[in-house]
Amino acid sequence: MEIKNKIKSKIRNIHDFPKDGIIFRDITTLINDSEGFSLVIDELTKRYSSLEIDAVAGIEARGFIFGAAVANNLGKGFIPIRKAGKLPFDTISYEYDLEYGTDVVEIHTDSFKKGDKILILDDLLATGGTSIASAKLVEKLGGEVVELGFVVNLPDIGGEKAIKDSGYSMFSICEFEGE
Amino acid sequence: MEIKNKIKSKIRNIHDFPKDGIIFRDITTLINDSEGFSLVIDELTKRYSSLEIDAVAGIEARGFIFGAAVANNLGKGFIPIRKAGKLPFDTISYEYDLEYGTDVVEIHTDSFKKGDKILILDDLLATGGTSIASAKLVEKLGGEVVELGFVVNLPDIGGEKAIKDSGYSMFSICEFEGE
Repeated sequence: MEIKNKIKSKIRNIHDFPKDGIIFRDITTLINDSEGFSLVIDELTKRYSSLEIDAVAGIEARGFIFGAAVANNLGKGFIPIRKAGKLPFDTISYEYDLEYGTDVVEIHTDSFKKGDKILILDDLLATGGTSIASAKLVEKLGGEVVELGFVVNLPDIGGEKAIKDSGYSMFSICEFEGE
Repeated sequence: MEIKNKIKSKIRNIHDFPKDGIIFRDITTLINDSEGFSLVIDELTKRYSSLEIDAVAGIEARGFIFGAAVANNLGKGFIPIRKAGKLPFDTISYEYDLEYGTDVVEIHTDSFKKGDKILILDDLLATGGTSIASAKLVEKLGGEVVELGFVVNLPDIGGEKAIKDSGYSMFSICEFEGE
């Protein structure tokens, strides 16, 4: 089986979560599995070994799992991007729209040096709201966004288009489309 | 400089956070730094390479950073232990006391097989409430807790004693005591 299909096959589909009609793509079955976890981290590491990267940022909370393991494999530092009020030092924040209301992501102002090339990783791309907000945060601090990388892309929900329309590069290991 | 002192020196002290009189030990400066992040993950990997471990559990959210990188280095699966309501599949939960009120941690019921040896990692040991609750969760599912491992131990707050009194093994890379 092709590696990306093997990874995809280890992701669990949970119907009607968090609400009716939604199929939640649960990556915990992938990462609980030693083979699955190695495969997905190896795939990301392979892709990013060949790009110039100064540090890897992960988006709270599942993005920490993939971001930290990849950062360590690349020999780079890891930058947590968190929800409001979780980081203890000076932060900047970026507010973005949800279906109903807004949400905020934050980053420490001294997370990296101006001009640094930052890879941003998360588990899953849906609307793209959180990841685009994270990219804006990195740019507000003078960083260059190398790419927004994901394990799972749900292109039907529009995040891939939104990221590309915002001018960022986007990568995912596998997709669930019209399923 | 001894490795553990080098790691300790990269942790930032934030006075009066989250409230007056508290010194918050901020590991983000350690992990932002490529050398610091490699050192801390290498230290944990070295310790746990020689122990029999089936999977590594990390406690939300900072425990994900250390747990995932170590699990990947060991070639093991990663198990997220999360706050209430975050895991999408069947869970069991464990409630524990805080200074005021209670809190809950949860784990997926199919995170590992009965009899599996589970290492639990988190960034910092204070009262030990969350980590002991996490150990109880693992045991409720029939797992064996290999050790509770931390980057930072604050022995004055009593977590180390509480963990040992509960019969678990405990390890930390560095301590802040009476400082």
